[in-house]
Amino acid sequence: MDNIKFESGRLFILDQTRLPNEEIYIEMKSLEGCFEAIKKLMVRGAPAIGIFAGYSLALFHGNNIEKAKEYLDSARPTAVNLTYATTRILKAYKSGKSLIDEAIAIHDEDIEMCRKISEYGLSLLHDGDGILTHCNAGELATSKYGTGLGPLILGKEKGYDFHVFSDETRPLLQGARLTSYELEKRGIDVTLICDNMASLMMKKGLINAVLVGCDRVAANGDVANKIGTSGVAILAKHYGIPFYVLGPYSTVDFDTPTGDDIVIEERDANEIKTMFYEKPMALPETKCFNPAFDVTDHSLITAIITDKGIVYPPFEKNLREHLK
Amino acid sequence: MDNIKFESGRLFILDQTRLPNEEIYIEMKSLEGCFEAIKKLMVRGAPAIGIFAGYSLALFHGNNIEKAKEYLDSARPTAVNLTYATTRILKAYKSGKSLIDEAIAIHDEDIEMCRKISEYGLSLLHDGDGILTHCNAGELATSKYGTGLGPLILGKEKGYDFHVFSDETRPLLQGARLTSYELEKRGIDVTLICDNMASLMMKKGLINAVLVGCDRVAANGDVANKIGTSGVAILAKHYGIPFYVLGPYSTVDFDTPTGDDIVIEERDANEIKTMFYEKPMALPETKCFNPAFDVTDHSLITAIITDKGIVYPPFEKNLREHLK
Repeated sequence: MDNIKFESGRLFILDQTRLPNEEIYIEMKSLEGCFEAIKKLMVRGAPAIGIFAGYSLALFHGNNIEKAKEYLDSARPTAVNLTYATTRILKAYKSGKSLIDEAIAIHDEDIEMCRKISEYGLSLLHDGDGILTHCNAGELATSKYGTGLGPLILGKEKGYDFHVFSDETRPLLQGARLTSYELEKRGIDVTLICDNMASLMMKKGLINAVLVGCDRVAANGDVANKIGTSGVAILAKHYGIPFYVLGPYSTVDFDTPTGDDIVIEERDANEIKTMFYEKPMALPETKCFNPAFDVTDHSLITAIITDKGIVYPPFEKNLREHLK
Repeated sequence: MDNIKFESGRLFILDQTRLPNEEIYIEMKSLEGCFEAIKKLMVRGAPAIGIFAGYSLALFHGNNIEKAKEYLDSARPTAVNLTYATTRILKAYKSGKSLIDEAIAIHDEDIEMCRKISEYGLSLLHDGDGILTHCNAGELATSKYGTGLGPLILGKEKGYDFHVFSDETRPLLQGARLTSYELEKRGIDVTLICDNMASLMMKKGLINAVLVGCDRVAANGDVANKIGTSGVAILAKHYGIPFYVLGPYSTVDFDTPTGDDIVIEERDANEIKTMFYEKPMALPETKCFNPAFDVTDHSLITAIITDKGIVYPPFEKNLREHLK
């Protein structure tokens, strides 16, 4: 399930906009096609974009590589990995090296980086563990293994048997559309849940560890990641479950002292108001757990207000007081 | 915005299956029509079903009231309020009382109960408060005011200016479709968020209190409510925000010692896998807050794993260690 394939000199990508309902590889035949593939999110995830851009420029730079690089970089201007990769290809060109070899090197380095993260992560887990994950930090966003999902995919290769719970991750449902999809394809046991079901899963004792990726790590260790990650961390702390953040070391930004210095991107309200995805959001075989309610432990409740008045803890005693 | 209207001897209901996109009142003209309205969830919420069933039986019992009652009760067999109301109408019939007066009494008693809950709840709040709510415990589910939303609606009448954040409440989106709708209609400032955004709203200091309804309260104060409620409670505790549960005293079940004794209903996986609601899920004017990421405070993170290894707290010191 490679998202980017380079075979016999030809470049193919798995069109991520059609997942999980259709698995279609598209062959890239022009720089314009590569530009569109990045812009339309057919390839997504910072490392994956970088890898793809490396091959794109190496194959389709035409007569003016500097202009071709500039054009490709403009497909997603904020993606640092994109410019990083195209700059390396340009350097290779100027020093007369093989561009294809350089593109393959970028690809291989990402695999190596992900593999290391996965190995460190796997050393914290045990066979049979229940794992909760949020959003998508897997192979579709990187090269092989991924970051947040890396230990699970590497573990599967080594014969570990994990039980993964994937938060659907509203509003764009990366957990439903991508994480559930890629773990399912790897033969890993995965259950899709709505984000608000994580607390119940933890309470039931089904979660031994939480694994998430990260977009930026501040100098003090504060982590910016997909909306909802902080909530999962608070739940994990409450239930005494370890909460692990996984990502390349380059994600640590020492110029950002704390998380308060990170500006949070606000997106279009229509992502919440209307369902952007009309087709099924997960594979037919994806398991789901869909409880209608959960139980809030009394220790978490400040007061219960009924038509008889306000009841404060201890509830066991005070609810009965109202019977009198 | 009454969900059930009894005017000049005619019974109307607001069809909740068409909310928030269409506001259509339907006149009930037969017992069969009332049965269908309950069965198809055109009227929903335990108290609202009871009120509606009272009017239905009073108006359309025909020649055989016992048979009519039995038929109506079968529309939603687990709804206790339904049988409670029809039993009262039957009793009134047997003692020669006015059935319509009894139906109106049931309706009025619900309004009075909700009003008391709302007043107690309101005494805990302050003008200008930011309030988080989960699911829907408002007027659409009861009569006037509601339970969980009661203090907000009563407060509005008294000139309070609240800023409400409504969890969309996946999978069935009662927060988006119903809570946002009914608060908007009441002129209350409401912002729709995805469930996983609650942590960020609290961290930003926008939430002064959490208000939720309840389906059952165990003897020790454990509360069963819509999936996700326990997660919100844990977040509130973490951020030091009061978490209030509101509901009629009849919801306290002393035959249930603790929450562990409450069986959780599991629902169809397709509610998660496919979006059941193809039309817009909130009014065009509903405000939304849609951040793409949030920041997980380092104090919540057990370890950060990079390609340089595993970093444990204190991160400020230990992340730098890896630079060496």
